[in-house]
Amino acid sequence: MKLATYKDGSRDGQLVVVSRDLSTAHFANGIAGRLQLVLDDWNFLSPQLQDLYTTLNQGKARHAFAFEPAKCMAPLPRAYGWLQAEAWPTLAQRVQGAEAPAEPVLLQGASDDFLGPCDDAWFGSAAWQIDFGAGLAAITGDVGMGASAEQGLDGVRLLMLANLWRLRGLAPLAHALPAAAFAPVAVTPDELGEAWAGGRVQLPLSVTAAGRKLGVCEAGAGMAWHFGQLIAQAAKTRNLRAGCVLGAGPLSDPDTRHGVACLAEKRALEATQHGEPRSPWLQLGDTVKLEMKGRDGETVFGPLAQRVTGPGMAAEERDADAGTDSVEAGDAAPAGVPSTDSAPGADA
Amino acid sequence: MKLATYKDGSRDGQLVVVSRDLSTAHFANGIAGRLQLVLDDWNFLSPQLQDLYTTLNQGKARHAFAFEPAKCMAPLPRAYGWLQAEAWPTLAQRVQGAEAPAEPVLLQGASDDFLGPCDDAWFGSAAWQIDFGAGLAAITGDVGMGASAEQGLDGVRLLMLANLWRLRGLAPLAHALPAAAFAPVAVTPDELGEAWAGGRVQLPLSVTAAGRKLGVCEAGAGMAWHFGQLIAQAAKTRNLRAGCVLGAGPLSDPDTRHGVACLAEKRALEATQHGEPRSPWLQLGDTVKLEMKGRDGETVFGPLAQRVTGPGMAAEERDADAGTDSVEAGDAAPAGVPSTDSAPGADA
Repeated sequence: MKLATYKDGSRDGQLVVVSRDLSTAHFANGIAGRLQLVLDDWNFLSPQLQDLYTTLNQGKARHAFAFEPAKCMAPLPRAYGWLQAEAWPTLAQRVQGAEAPAEPVLLQGASDDFLGPCDDAWFGSAAWQIDFGAGLAAITGDVGMGASAEQGLDGVRLLMLANLWRLRGLAPLAHALPAAAFAPVAVTPDELGEAWAGGRVQLPLSVTAAGRKLGVCEAGAGMAWHFGQLIAQAAKTRNLRAGCVLGAGPLSDPDTRHGVACLAEKRALEATQHGEPRSPWLQLGDTVKLEMKGRDGETVFGPLAQRVTGPGMAAEERDADAGTDSVEAGDAAPAGVPSTDSAPGADA
Repeated sequence: MKLATYKDGSRDGQLVVVSRDLSTAHFANGIAGRLQLVLDDWNFLSPQLQDLYTTLNQGKARHAFAFEPAKCMAPLPRAYGWLQAEAWPTLAQRVQGAEAPAEPVLLQGASDDFLGPCDDAWFGSAAWQIDFGAGLAAITGDVGMGASAEQGLDGVRLLMLANLWRLRGLAPLAHALPAAAFAPVAVTPDELGEAWAGGRVQLPLSVTAAGRKLGVCEAGAGMAWHFGQLIAQAAKTRNLRAGCVLGAGPLSDPDTRHGVACLAEKRALEATQHGEPRSPWLQLGDTVKLEMKGRDGETVFGPLAQRVTGPGMAAEERDADAGTDSVEAGDAAPAGVPSTDSAPGADA
C-alpha cells in the first residue's frame, strides 16, 4: 500500500492512504490519524489500511479526493530515529580503486524536522556549499539489538525516496547534515514487486538540479550493502524502535553514463574529465527534482521538487514560483523555514 | 516543577507530576498523558501542570501516591532529536594544555529507546569496553535555525541528569553511543534557583561505579559552553523542534580532587599518576549510580542506578538483585533488553 501525510498545520499532519497510481487519496483518520501510531501498532492497524487501499484502488472509497503532492509533509514528518548510511561507494572511491570499507558508515541525523516533497529548503548561506543527495530510506518496525541482516530485512515496514541535503562547506556533521526531505508517498515493499530484490530497490531514479538533468541512475546497482545489512549494522549495540528511519545515499550508479545523483559526484566526474570541477554548488533559487518510476512507467513515490531558499531571497521571490500551497499557520513552524519563536540569527 | 514518566507497558508511559522533595506524585492524565504532548503545546499545558505541582507540594492533591523512581522510564522515553555535546574539555586535553576547540563537538545519538533510571543496560560484550558518562541534558522547545545563544537559553524547557553510555572499544559513533539513560525526574530551570546560573547547573554530582565512589564533581565548573550556546550550535543549519534533547557530558571537574565522572577520565588520571591506567572498564554485573543534590541536600533529579548486563549473565542472575520492578509485557520491549520480535544475534 501507499501512504502519505497531508499538511494540516499540526506537527504530525494527517495520514492518508494513496491509490497505486497516485491519482486519489483518502484520509485514514478512521483507522489512525498519523503514521507513527500505525508503526507503533503495525500488526493491528496496517491490515485495516490495506483494506482501505484496496477499496480506494477499486474506485469504491466513498470520500476519496484527488491526491496533491504539494499538500504533503514527509510521510513521517518527525521520527524517533534517523540514520544515513553511505551505502554506495562514491565515484572518487571507485576511480581511486579504493577497497570498499568493511562496514557501512552510518551517520546519525536530525529527525525532528523532516521536510515535505515540495517544501523549500532554507539555508543560511550559499557559501555553505549546498548540495543534495538522492537516496532511499526504510522505516523500520522494532528491531532488537544484535539482529541479523535477515531480521533487519524483516524489519522493513515502508520505503521512501529521500533527498539528503548536504552542506559540503561545513565540517561538523551536526551542521553538514541539515533536515532531509522525502517524496510524498511511503510504500510497503510489496508495492515494488520484483523491483524489491536482494534488499535493494532495482529501479531507475531520475535526478534534476538547477534545470539540468543530472542522471537516471539505477538505484540497485552499486549499493554495497542492502537494507537488511544496514539495519543490522545500526542495531549492533542498540534496539531500533518502530519508526526508526534508515536512509541510504547518495546513490552512485557505477555506470557513469547513467549520470550522477548529487553535485559532489558531478564535480568529481568533471575533475576526472577536465582536471577541475565545473558545476557550481546549488544557488538560492535552484530547484532539485527527484522521481522514481516503476518498469511500467508509473511513479512509485511521487515527485519531489524542492527549491533552495535563504536570507538572500525576498519573501515574494520565494513565494512567486514555489508552485506549492503555503503552509497553514499553526502550532508548528512551516517546514524548512525558521520557526518564529526565535528568529534566525545573522547570516554565517 | 518536576515531571516524570511512569512505566505502563506502552512506548511513551504515563506522565506524572512529582513533588519537590520527590516523596509523592500524581498522574497528569487529566492534563496530558505523555510528556511530548506537553512539549508540543507548552504554553497551554505547562501552567496546568504547574498548578497541579503546587497543589501536590501543599499536600492537597487528592490522588497523590508515593513516588517510586524504580517505576520510571526516562522522563521523555523517546525523543525526536538527541545530540550529545562534548562541553567539558577532558582531563587529557587539560593535561596536554591543549587549546579548547573553538566550537563544541556535537554528536547525534539514538533517541528512540532511552533507558529509565533503574533499567539494566544490556551490552552484547564486555569486550566493547563499557564506560558511562555523567552528564546533564536540556529538553528544548521550538528553536529556529540560526538562533543566538540567548535564544537557545530561552528554548530550555526542562533539565535532566543523564547517563551517557559509551563503548570505548568501538570506533563507529553509531555503535559507540548506545542508548542513554536519564534520572527519574525532569525539572524546569526555576527549580534550581540560584544553582541555574550562566546557562549551567552549578551543583555537585555524585558518581559511583562498580561499588567505588569516583567523584563528587561540580557540574558548572569547567563547562566550556553553556546550554544556550550548545543549543545555538545545534541550530546553526536547522530548526530544533519541541522535544529535542541536548545532552552535555561527560562532565569533567577541573579540580581533580573532586574526582571524575566517567572511567575514561579515571584511567587518564591513573595514567598520569602511575604511568598506566589501573581501573578496568565496566564488567557485567557492575552498577553505576548518579545523583545530584541541591545546596539544601535534597535530591534534584532523583537517583539513577543502572546495572550492566549482557549475554554472559543468566536471566535469574539479572533479575535477582535488580531491585527494580520488571517491565510489564506490552507492545514495547522492556527497555535495555533486545525486543522479542527479532531475537538478538550472536555475541560480537
